[in-house]
Amino acid sequence: MSQNRQVVIRELPKGELTNDHFELVDGEMPGVDEGQVRVRTILMSIDAANRAWMQGATYREAVKAGDVMHTYSIGEVVESKDPSLSEGDIVAVEARWADYVTVKARHAQKLPDYRPLTHMLSVLGIAGKTAYHGLIGVGAPKAGETVVVSAAAGSVGIFVGQIAKALGCRAVGIAGGQEKCDWVVNELGFDACVDYRGGNLFRELKAACPDGIDIYFDNVGGEVLETVLFQMNMKGRVVCCGAVSQYNADAPTGPRNLPGLIVVKRLRMEGFIVMDFADQDAKAESDLMGWVKEGKIVVVEDVVEGLENAPRALTGLLAGDNRGKRMVRVAPDPS
Amino acid sequence: MSQNRQVVIRELPKGELTNDHFELVDGEMPGVDEGQVRVRTILMSIDAANRAWMQGATYREAVKAGDVMHTYSIGEVVESKDPSLSEGDIVAVEARWADYVTVKARHAQKLPDYRPLTHMLSVLGIAGKTAYHGLIGVGAPKAGETVVVSAAAGSVGIFVGQIAKALGCRAVGIAGGQEKCDWVVNELGFDACVDYRGGNLFRELKAACPDGIDIYFDNVGGEVLETVLFQMNMKGRVVCCGAVSQYNADAPTGPRNLPGLIVVKRLRMEGFIVMDFADQDAKAESDLMGWVKEGKIVVVEDVVEGLENAPRALTGLLAGDNRGKRMVRVAPDPS
Repeated sequence: MSQNRQVVIRELPKGELTNDHFELVDGEMPGVDEGQVRVRTILMSIDAANRAWMQGATYREAVKAGDVMHTYSIGEVVESKDPSLSEGDIVAVEARWADYVTVKARHAQKLPDYRPLTHMLSVLGIAGKTAYHGLIGVGAPKAGETVVVSAAAGSVGIFVGQIAKALGCRAVGIAGGQEKCDWVVNELGFDACVDYRGGNLFRELKAACPDGIDIYFDNVGGEVLETVLFQMNMKGRVVCCGAVSQYNADAPTGPRNLPGLIVVKRLRMEGFIVMDFADQDAKAESDLMGWVKEGKIVVVEDVVEGLENAPRALTGLLAGDNRGKRMVRVAPDPS
Repeated sequence: MSQNRQVVIRELPKGELTNDHFELVDGEMPGVDEGQVRVRTILMSIDAANRAWMQGATYREAVKAGDVMHTYSIGEVVESKDPSLSEGDIVAVEARWADYVTVKARHAQKLPDYRPLTHMLSVLGIAGKTAYHGLIGVGAPKAGETVVVSAAAGSVGIFVGQIAKALGCRAVGIAGGQEKCDWVVNELGFDACVDYRGGNLFRELKAACPDGIDIYFDNVGGEVLETVLFQMNMKGRVVCCGAVSQYNADAPTGPRNLPGLIVVKRLRMEGFIVMDFADQDAKAESDLMGWVKEGKIVVVEDVVEGLENAPRALTGLLAGDNRGKRMVRVAPDPS
């Protein structure tokens, strides 16, 4: 009954993150003080950003060696010492890679009665909202424009392209490997998808975007960003969402054609994180659920079973082996 | 009477532009067809962008080997075969480094009766308007914010800082050499100016901007941009105006901390050129003239005498030897 398995980060990676940086340990069951709740983890979100957290403080505190790995998760309240939450409530929390965590009740967000729970981490979660707010709030797409998204088969990318299509844009993905690219086109309905590992990114992107690129939703940074910049149209927008190509890098490389191209093409590059648009979340959820019901958005989820498999779920994600939103199921949905 | 001295670009530079890339020759006096005017050059604008024109087509046609060097100039109509212009009119034209040019009358912009003419190339010209539109239209400054501008002693930079002060912002310059920095503070009224050649740009900038940087008006790109980005505040704006550090470079280098910092700090980097804001020019001129009259803007002009000295005026500018708007006087003001 006191078992609380935890995955600890043994040491911070210098370059590539590997499974050996983690260790599964048997931890204490955390106590519950006044104002707190104990939450049993059901689903943990696995994100490229987890790796960025290890590089120092970003928009949140840094992950340190010896920490139980940080995560965003969905769980069930199993004990409550706060009137705002009851046993059995389903909540979203900043948690850890662990069977159980204790958090302040005011830091737990009670979720609506909606199933499947996995949707709360994918299309209605940070992934879907990141795609929605980034594309719409930052990119400001107009019907007929060409939208390119990198990591197109990833948790955010799959929604960016599908939302772009729903808005009447041409959607072009960039992904690693021809098989993944074919999947993006055939299963998700993108107009085209280019394999950045194919050796001809510039030429193939040009062929896929005959009218140039109006919006680039950048999840990767680095050389792909550099290449895309050359094909941006005047007054194009670069939505800066992530830089996954850099997270495992010792020495980051920036796009060498900056800032020259920004001036010549009057580009706008703008960064955001999903919380910046919290005031638009209700509209985002409503639009996203509408598109799902209309069949305009296919929800693809990539669920890895078992807490003990969280390290490989993350390292695999960083190597690009996921399709759609990756998460780890730690316990079954109690309902 | 037929003399028309011209400065030809003998070959395009691969790396650094030198005076030897130019040659003064004796050219033909150009004829005047219907719809054209012959213009006697009075003042030629000398700009870092002239060097960028040699790197290929930008927002205008490229300069090619064998061309009489391109320029933006102010001159007097000496012969007109178009009803819209008369002899004696003062016009602004896309011209050449030459005593005389012939252009289509509709490409010549008749200037108002205003003196000194030099102001039409500085505070009321592209330099002043670039500073105004970039800082206000792109940067959107609020009173109390910290504005940093590179090439602070240059044609645009001197106005950026002074406009920032007029709007109630803290103005901090970056320039090359302590003497130039002292001049920016003492003569132009900037709050501080940091010598990027001093070896401690990061630390000195931090000291000069204790509350961080809200707007960076970037005229230089490269390492200075990279350094400034680390000190930008959340939701900061980078106004991308030029990249003079790159124009003489064989292999451009981009800021290595991009796009990561753009995401983390939710920065906006946006490029512009002065023509994008043509619809705001009247307000810009009115505001700028008002600030000059009120003594809030000191107009500094750097006039080099003689067409034959145009090459060294440009190469010197690229080496940073100017203070304020550089121009070449080819002929006296006829008035």
